[in-house]
Amino acid sequence: MNYAVIGTGAIGGFYGALLQHSGYEVHFLLHSDFEQVKNQGLKVESVDKGDISLSSVNAYCRVQDMPYCDVVIVSLKTYQNQLLKDIIPSLCKEDTIVILLQNGLGMEAGLRELLPNNPILGGMCFICSNKVGPGHIKHLDYGSVTLGEYAGETQAAGITRNLEKVAAEFQTAGIDVQTSDNLMKSRWIKLMWNMPFNGLSVVLRATTDEIMANPYTRELAESIMREARTAAAYCGITIEEEVVDTLLQGTSKMVSYSPSMKLDFEKSSSLETQYIYWNPINAAYNAGYDMTASRTLAHELEFFNHLN
Amino acid sequence: MNYAVIGTGAIGGFYGALLQHSGYEVHFLLHSDFEQVKNQGLKVESVDKGDISLSSVNAYCRVQDMPYCDVVIVSLKTYQNQLLKDIIPSLCKEDTIVILLQNGLGMEAGLRELLPNNPILGGMCFICSNKVGPGHIKHLDYGSVTLGEYAGETQAAGITRNLEKVAAEFQTAGIDVQTSDNLMKSRWIKLMWNMPFNGLSVVLRATTDEIMANPYTRELAESIMREARTAAAYCGITIEEEVVDTLLQGTSKMVSYSPSMKLDFEKSSSLETQYIYWNPINAAYNAGYDMTASRTLAHELEFFNHLN
Repeated sequence: MNYAVIGTGAIGGFYGALLQHSGYEVHFLLHSDFEQVKNQGLKVESVDKGDISLSSVNAYCRVQDMPYCDVVIVSLKTYQNQLLKDIIPSLCKEDTIVILLQNGLGMEAGLRELLPNNPILGGMCFICSNKVGPGHIKHLDYGSVTLGEYAGETQAAGITRNLEKVAAEFQTAGIDVQTSDNLMKSRWIKLMWNMPFNGLSVVLRATTDEIMANPYTRELAESIMREARTAAAYCGITIEEEVVDTLLQGTSKMVSYSPSMKLDFEKSSSLETQYIYWNPINAAYNAGYDMTASRTLAHELEFFNHLN
Repeated sequence: MNYAVIGTGAIGGFYGALLQHSGYEVHFLLHSDFEQVKNQGLKVESVDKGDISLSSVNAYCRVQDMPYCDVVIVSLKTYQNQLLKDIIPSLCKEDTIVILLQNGLGMEAGLRELLPNNPILGGMCFICSNKVGPGHIKHLDYGSVTLGEYAGETQAAGITRNLEKVAAEFQTAGIDVQTSDNLMKSRWIKLMWNMPFNGLSVVLRATTDEIMANPYTRELAESIMREARTAAAYCGITIEEEVVDTLLQGTSKMVSYSPSMKLDFEKSSSLETQYIYWNPINAAYNAGYDMTASRTLAHELEFFNHLN
């Protein structure tokens, strides 16, 4: 299959470069880095895949110049998702698969309104990678992607043919892929981590290990995590209680880590509050559950949100 | 009556200086500023009372050297209240009146354990004043004190003789005094302001006008304020709903203001979380109400608390 990458940053640039490096045709949509990538290509320094230099890259600054693709990878920040209505129609045939490599809740529902019939996959990346310069990505740790097909806000799609096809090609490109038969459950489990740690890392100006080291903020992180699990249940998604311990223990074992929202904050960039906080908070509220601690944190975050 | 001032800082130094300036005998307990005040006296620059220079001051660094007093004014930070058990017995006759010029909940109950029979007054200061150097206090704005007599956590003492006596002398000294017939109600009303604005000013690194200017944090402040009102009701204290609007409107009209907890934070000092947050949160919890937003904020504050 051939690929389009929308948002060629730390995520899209990394996975797109791996796909091209293993022989797939990839078309990159760029904004600020267009000239650099057009002329000099893409460079990835990876902790476990070595250095990848792609001197010749299909780089675009206008979506109208891009060809239709079999797979469109969306790796924009979610606060840019309003751009998709002007991008997606130019790239999609009737069977084009769109993959949303993003965090939060409600991205697939938003895209479904633009694309009533195409297959939509959601992807969650477990990766530390940064864009350190124009067209220059540094991959620091981890790198796996969990993919699942979207079938509505509560339904599990199972392991579909589209999912298997994409997963197989990703694997060929050296990407560690997990497939999820229940995308929304995977999304809510990721929220159980993102809702405490993204927000607290901004408000407390703290890395995950600092949050875990203070007994008060560790307890708060756990209670926000449990709140997200309860919210999922109200929204029709059952998550086993052990997941709380697994996530907390995993976080304890991680190196000192700055979640993406903290990096955005430090860059004075916008914060992904809509999809990581307000969408799940509102979904739970409409289902009869008030996420009080998450709501408090979200209100605080909006104070730091460059958008406001 | 003669007075002891325990904690000669921005509050105790200011009111103590006014009392001495108008002719009352005042004995000041000092710690870091002892030498300076012993030798050079106390200096107050006041926005509305002019400059007060007291060249000769009864200054002490050991409570054992102080005389018994008719009135003991406690203006320590509440996180120093564990010192009172070693201070109070040296100063108190059986009818000595102790005034706690502090913010929060539970200070009087703690003191009652040390002093089963003495009259205890609680005082809330509405004042902007700072210690700008050793023995040097700058009074910037406001200055009134609300005083009420303690009669347990839910009972109203009414306007007592002790209260009237102290209020009259304070007034003679040029201090604007309001008397409260219901100390605990006054304490909870002050908490309705302190619980949102002290904590948010630290977590958001923001002044009151900045908190009020952002619609998300203004809404959060109001909901924490309403939470405190509900908590008071669970604790047996009825506060009229209009108080919420009065406090919010008053805050909107205030100049850009840094609450005391923000100043403590900026000095890398300890934060008064125990009395301003945990005591009311626990009192409400034991009465059947969970102050969820305040609890979230309190957990965050402990991350910044120098004590931890």
